[in-house]
Amino acid sequence: MATLDRWLLPDGIEEVLPAEAARIETARRQVLDLFRNWGYELVITPHVEYLESLLTGAAQDLDLRTFKVTDPLSGRQMGFRADITPQVARLDAHTHRQEGPSRLCYAGSVLHARPAALSTSRSPIQIGAELYGDASTASDREVISLMLEVLELAGVAEVHMDLGHVGIYRGLARAAGLSGETEQQLFDALQRKAIDEVAALTAALPAEQAAMLRALAELCGGREVLAEARQLLVAAPADVLAALAELEEVAGELSARYPALPLYFDLGELRGYHYHTGMVFAAFVPGVGQSIAQGGRYDDIGADFGRARPATGFSTDLKALVTLGQAIQAADPRGIWAPQSGDARLWQTVLELRRSGRRVVQALPGQTLADAREAGCDSELRLQEGGWQVSPLAS
Amino acid sequence: MATLDRWLLPDGIEEVLPAEAARIETARRQVLDLFRNWGYELVITPHVEYLESLLTGAAQDLDLRTFKVTDPLSGRQMGFRADITPQVARLDAHTHRQEGPSRLCYAGSVLHARPAALSTSRSPIQIGAELYGDASTASDREVISLMLEVLELAGVAEVHMDLGHVGIYRGLARAAGLSGETEQQLFDALQRKAIDEVAALTAALPAEQAAMLRALAELCGGREVLAEARQLLVAAPADVLAALAELEEVAGELSARYPALPLYFDLGELRGYHYHTGMVFAAFVPGVGQSIAQGGRYDDIGADFGRARPATGFSTDLKALVTLGQAIQAADPRGIWAPQSGDARLWQTVLELRRSGRRVVQALPGQTLADAREAGCDSELRLQEGGWQVSPLAS
Repeated sequence: MATLDRWLLPDGIEEVLPAEAARIETARRQVLDLFRNWGYELVITPHVEYLESLLTGAAQDLDLRTFKVTDPLSGRQMGFRADITPQVARLDAHTHRQEGPSRLCYAGSVLHARPAALSTSRSPIQIGAELYGDASTASDREVISLMLEVLELAGVAEVHMDLGHVGIYRGLARAAGLSGETEQQLFDALQRKAIDEVAALTAALPAEQAAMLRALAELCGGREVLAEARQLLVAAPADVLAALAELEEVAGELSARYPALPLYFDLGELRGYHYHTGMVFAAFVPGVGQSIAQGGRYDDIGADFGRARPATGFSTDLKALVTLGQAIQAADPRGIWAPQSGDARLWQTVLELRRSGRRVVQALPGQTLADAREAGCDSELRLQEGGWQVSPLAS
Repeated sequence: MATLDRWLLPDGIEEVLPAEAARIETARRQVLDLFRNWGYELVITPHVEYLESLLTGAAQDLDLRTFKVTDPLSGRQMGFRADITPQVARLDAHTHRQEGPSRLCYAGSVLHARPAALSTSRSPIQIGAELYGDASTASDREVISLMLEVLELAGVAEVHMDLGHVGIYRGLARAAGLSGETEQQLFDALQRKAIDEVAALTAALPAEQAAMLRALAELCGGREVLAEARQLLVAAPADVLAALAELEEVAGELSARYPALPLYFDLGELRGYHYHTGMVFAAFVPGVGQSIAQGGRYDDIGADFGRARPATGFSTDLKALVTLGQAIQAADPRGIWAPQSGDARLWQTVLELRRSGRRVVQALPGQTLADAREAGCDSELRLQEGGWQVSPLAS
């Protein structure tokens, strides 16, 4: 690699320069403070784990997205985390085992061997919150509201929300006795809203069950979708109707809390189907193809670690949040310029100013007031009346 | 892997539970704020890079400590960062190219394929600061003082400081015309203070040069070492004497700024020799074998990226800082308990309390005041006189 190439970064792997890094740091602190104020406790999960731990209970596509290496100490396969949620579930199931509900949050980089979509970053900074131990819609409502508060504090404009519930498809597929393979094919066809394929895959089923599964592809739109679903799925099994009732309840509460928030429903959209078990949700903004924050219920993910618990949560990418959020400001960039001087009183003055939270940049040999302005300073320390005083920067 | 094994983490890879994570978060913010107040700008470097970029200009032992994978997109070898310093140097040399001096800082996890020492973590959280573009001792003094301020704010007790200067050995070895291989063997022997080997390796040299190289193994101790060195190295080349003068100057300034700080000198200790070019320093506390913060000058590290610049900096591990520091407190863990209720006024009250920075934990179905206490709450919201009021938690 020639000298000039050595600074090139792999596709989808970014470095962050000061202006953006300062905004990301602000967003990180504000979001973690918000989580704390909602009762969520921070945990820090490792960047690398044994592959079995990392991929257990998680979606299969996570396997493809995970970088793998051999641990030189144990000779076992390890992976770099591509998603923090399964790690936190492991933690709740084992090392942070609590009797009652548990609220946990996290923030950290993840790595994707392959980008989730074309031109997507392979190194997002995932930040999110998880609520374990409660199966009621109270948790779904809390977690979705918390996600909306994150977008609100970041100043993300024109958010709309997609809601779905994988229990609806799951219940219908089970009632229809679909084999694992057919269920997967039908799932794929529904995702693509490939109506013809959905029709073909359900052709052999009793008419009523086929009609309900086919209806899912078209049950997408505004609030009216829920009423339509009530009619079209009237003959569905009890668990499907219960899932629909959950969706109605949460939608009603969200509309009361956020009257201006556009809500969309898509009963055939099953993002993260292998992972989620109940309500799923995602926030979108106009002009951005991917969701900017997303989550859902994934009960029993901890079972593979020896403890099945109800669970719901959401996550977002701090880099995307800062790109789309207008409210995130970097900390005050102004500062005080201190000259080069061996005067012990200057050192004391500078130290006290810094300890009081002021930004003081000390001149290095040969630097001038032009460098002070370059460093964002609008005032300087000058020796006046026997002491070092802060004065406006000489122009 | 059996269910019970799936939660096991690889040796030296840790997860951090809430109590410690809260303290690490506090330390992270306090240290980054300190860096900011000293004029250092935050950058975020990627966790993975092409191997050539990651290892260029860095110490050879970094190669052994770096996890490697093949990038599925480019087919090229990538590595997971084991040290952030060379990444920031690349950034200064290229994407954040500034004319004058530049102050940058960072905080983030690194991964070591092999632990630096037995029972050392393989997943420290490295936090540090780098100063580019100034070759004078003003930068060395600033960076060492900043490191001491970090230890001070963390409340690390009984810190003592080791100072050295690789320019002394480097200059003597060059003047003696040592071949690369002999220089390396002598370096190894000096590190181990293996006096016999040092004598053997220098036996063929002129007596004066041999005597000076041998003296290095014994030039360690308090401030008196500098005076001894002046005598023993009186015939040394000018660059060796200049290096000694730099050490004297910085030591004098540090003693003035931190009169209670014990200073030790070791002219044969050459930690990071292949990487460093000038003054090197490390902070130790009693009972801990490894340094808890360390750094040094590494001029011209950016040359391999097309830009040679003077550089000095230091780093520490946030996990170690929190273990050894007594002053780092988690944010106030107390909170207000809110009952489960569909009352829209309760939602508004909770929202306002949280936005004002209060921690409010909402009850989930079936939870009682015992859960409130478990969640750290010492007050609760009660409906009184037509509104929701904060009251002490009923006992």
